[in-house]
Amino acid sequence: MTTRRELVAALQEIAGPRNVLWRREDLLVYEFDGTVETQMPDAVVLPANAEETARVVQLCNRARVPVTPRGAGTGLSGGAVPTRRGVVIATARMREIFELDPVNQVAMVGPGLANIQLSEAAAVHGLFFAPDPSSQKACTIGGNVAENAGGPHCLALGVTQNHVLGLEVVTAAGEITWLGVRTQEPTGYDLRGAFIGSEGTLGIATRVVVRLLPLPPSVVTLLAIFDSLEQASETVSAIIGAGMVPAALEMMDRLTIKAAEAGLKCGYPPDAGAVLLIELDGIAELASEQAARAREACFACGATGVRVARDPAERADLWRGRKHAIGALGHIAPNYYILDGVVPRSRLVDVMARVTAIGAEYGLAIANVFHAGDGNLHPCILFDSREPGATERVLKAGGAIMQACVDAGGALSGEHGIGYEKQRYMRWLYNDDDLENMGRLRGVFGNAGDFNPCKVLPSGAGCGELARQQAALRAAGPDAYV
Amino acid sequence: MTTRRELVAALQEIAGPRNVLWRREDLLVYEFDGTVETQMPDAVVLPANAEETARVVQLCNRARVPVTPRGAGTGLSGGAVPTRRGVVIATARMREIFELDPVNQVAMVGPGLANIQLSEAAAVHGLFFAPDPSSQKACTIGGNVAENAGGPHCLALGVTQNHVLGLEVVTAAGEITWLGVRTQEPTGYDLRGAFIGSEGTLGIATRVVVRLLPLPPSVVTLLAIFDSLEQASETVSAIIGAGMVPAALEMMDRLTIKAAEAGLKCGYPPDAGAVLLIELDGIAELASEQAARAREACFACGATGVRVARDPAERADLWRGRKHAIGALGHIAPNYYILDGVVPRSRLVDVMARVTAIGAEYGLAIANVFHAGDGNLHPCILFDSREPGATERVLKAGGAIMQACVDAGGALSGEHGIGYEKQRYMRWLYNDDDLENMGRLRGVFGNAGDFNPCKVLPSGAGCGELARQQAALRAAGPDAYV
Repeated sequence: MTTRRELVAALQEIAGPRNVLWRREDLLVYEFDGTVETQMPDAVVLPANAEETARVVQLCNRARVPVTPRGAGTGLSGGAVPTRRGVVIATARMREIFELDPVNQVAMVGPGLANIQLSEAAAVHGLFFAPDPSSQKACTIGGNVAENAGGPHCLALGVTQNHVLGLEVVTAAGEITWLGVRTQEPTGYDLRGAFIGSEGTLGIATRVVVRLLPLPPSVVTLLAIFDSLEQASETVSAIIGAGMVPAALEMMDRLTIKAAEAGLKCGYPPDAGAVLLIELDGIAELASEQAARAREACFACGATGVRVARDPAERADLWRGRKHAIGALGHIAPNYYILDGVVPRSRLVDVMARVTAIGAEYGLAIANVFHAGDGNLHPCILFDSREPGATERVLKAGGAIMQACVDAGGALSGEHGIGYEKQRYMRWLYNDDDLENMGRLRGVFGNAGDFNPCKVLPSGAGCGELARQQAALRAAGPDAYV
Repeated sequence: MTTRRELVAALQEIAGPRNVLWRREDLLVYEFDGTVETQMPDAVVLPANAEETARVVQLCNRARVPVTPRGAGTGLSGGAVPTRRGVVIATARMREIFELDPVNQVAMVGPGLANIQLSEAAAVHGLFFAPDPSSQKACTIGGNVAENAGGPHCLALGVTQNHVLGLEVVTAAGEITWLGVRTQEPTGYDLRGAFIGSEGTLGIATRVVVRLLPLPPSVVTLLAIFDSLEQASETVSAIIGAGMVPAALEMMDRLTIKAAEAGLKCGYPPDAGAVLLIELDGIAELASEQAARAREACFACGATGVRVARDPAERADLWRGRKHAIGALGHIAPNYYILDGVVPRSRLVDVMARVTAIGAEYGLAIANVFHAGDGNLHPCILFDSREPGATERVLKAGGAIMQACVDAGGALSGEHGIGYEKQRYMRWLYNDDDLENMGRLRGVFGNAGDFNPCKVLPSGAGCGELARQQAALRAAGPDAYV
């Protein structure tokens, strides 16, 4: 089998003609995810279950056609972009809730289920799924597994890794296997742990067993207003240093506040230098006692005001601003490029100063919105791609910011993954031996190189095509997510 | 190099003559860990750091001598037993606290540091290391990493996997490499996650970066007394079902209570059918409000009484009974064999009934002490190894209990690992493909079969010697741990 026509026919044979896309107009939406790289696949297949998925992977392996798994395409590091064309396996049809067991607080779901739908189904039983990426209305549980996704409420509760007990996966070799079990601790080697966060390069999860948690009985949401980012950063250290573990601790800088307020009218003070969104939960006494202590810490660090959401509608408004802040940046610049780095909390202040200096050096405005409690930064470089040379400057400034994170003892990704975008930086953290060990992990799952190629590890030959095609950054629209 | 004399000389060259043990009397304490298998090593080496450790591993690989890593030897599945003789690498000399950073709440320590020493050092800053195995006065951080150790307080906070950020390891191939980083989320493939819980078969951790947590400002400890194990089990489901997440939720049955009270005089009611040890923590209001709710749940499920520890001394007494309960079983039988299985919480009642039935069927008394909140059982089969055929009956009954856990949708190990002891049961949970995938993970770290051989995966040739030598279960003394 060599032609695209034959490939499509074979895929139709497996998944049914209606579940294979091959016309140019149908493929267009599959050429990108939430980042700037694009590449058109040869075909997209939407299998119904593990068996069909396995047959598709086996077919592609025999035909030496690259395979790229895809959830909702909200990823921010290019993980779902079919860099070397071939077949995209989309999980959209596998979105069943197979089981929701409130007594043992576990659920088994299909990978294509949207994150929010799981928490909505669990809420009926007073439970929720902890990871809550800002894209949670769209992003899938399978995508969360692939990226080891975080979210504002992962500060206290941990990222996806801590909330997935077991997985049915189709490996890169096309075998169906189970990783982990239904209980908290894995038996034998923790391949479940190795698979989570492997960014779709080891296989495709076809069933996910997740842990659910009881919804907190009471929540207090505060908005603390500061003149400067430094004061807000010091407040983060003060709150954590005092032994509190807020449910969420999010920071937005001047530019982000301005954009959010302009686009979303969520009641942020438009001339503040920075705001912190702080959420405390638990029983009512605990939440309000902690809120009082957090409020004190804010004023001690120079806050000019602290607002408390008085009802669920005000709380929703405060969160709306945070969750859609990135999209709102479209109101102040035609393009943005969002980064994802992690630094130790104690280095927040000086790394933020370095980010500001890098912006000045390259003549670029940078908006900051991030999971401050985790030290997880999201600098957004604002620019206009029509301006000659702007895109190149943006990419260089982005590299300098990632370097600053690594220099501060941090990491290359908090929750968006390495993907295609950041594989070139992996050598800053890892030497050849480390990378070789990681590469061997692919062999465990039978990935000989064609399963989601050009992702995570610094690429060898065959991955240059995309780089050449990337003549310009594609404009990220106002509906993109962090 | 082929002789033992040459091997010892080469080890002395690397680590210094004082740090190599080779006389029979020095090797005796290294022939066993906390379980029943024994085997004498050819030599024990105590390297000072990663470099010496790497040279030892390389030497053994060249000479085709098996290597077995060892922490404090408190493990309960035979992981530190040198099944095929060779060299034991003990981590006792690598026990430095390299760094303790209270602002970022992380520490970097040597693998040989005792678990309790880390929490003692952290307590000065109001912090602690969450995993607290009952053996915490002796067991090491490196051993905790190897076994992905749990403990009573892991119900709310998660096991070792959730508290280790990064590792310097000497791989089975003898290379020094870093896995993970200092921040919460790993960058690239999570080899850190795959290494934790690999039971010393992939390499030896030589530095461990751990996450520390703030000590809770207030703790309430309750002892709830029941006539039957069923009532106590139902209480566990009622407490968790009501949305509470106690800091600890531990159960002991009639036989265990009797033994603990006889040996330890910790104030347990000697004629109770079961007790629950329940700990609630947080700010004072939270802890006491939750304690009141837990107390109500106990009475609603039929508790005959609920005691509250009035001061730290009473709290320590209640915990002393739990932490040394297994050892105290020596007061009522000369030998015991301890199991470690996990079941979904909702299956606790019927699996406990099955355990009782298995005891009756084989004519064996079984004491139960366990992490009830996690569904992590520890049935202890009591027997007298001098009685003809007793040992064989005990091993058969143990197998039947593990089968009952797996049948209930559970796992083969909650915190003690698979080790040598339970590899024969792995096929109950995993098929050939699954086991092959796990086996390939060894290749990632360069383990060709001689690095901690005969552990975790069902063994092939060369691992029969130990089985033949196991003529009888060795008596477990009163100082063993759970």
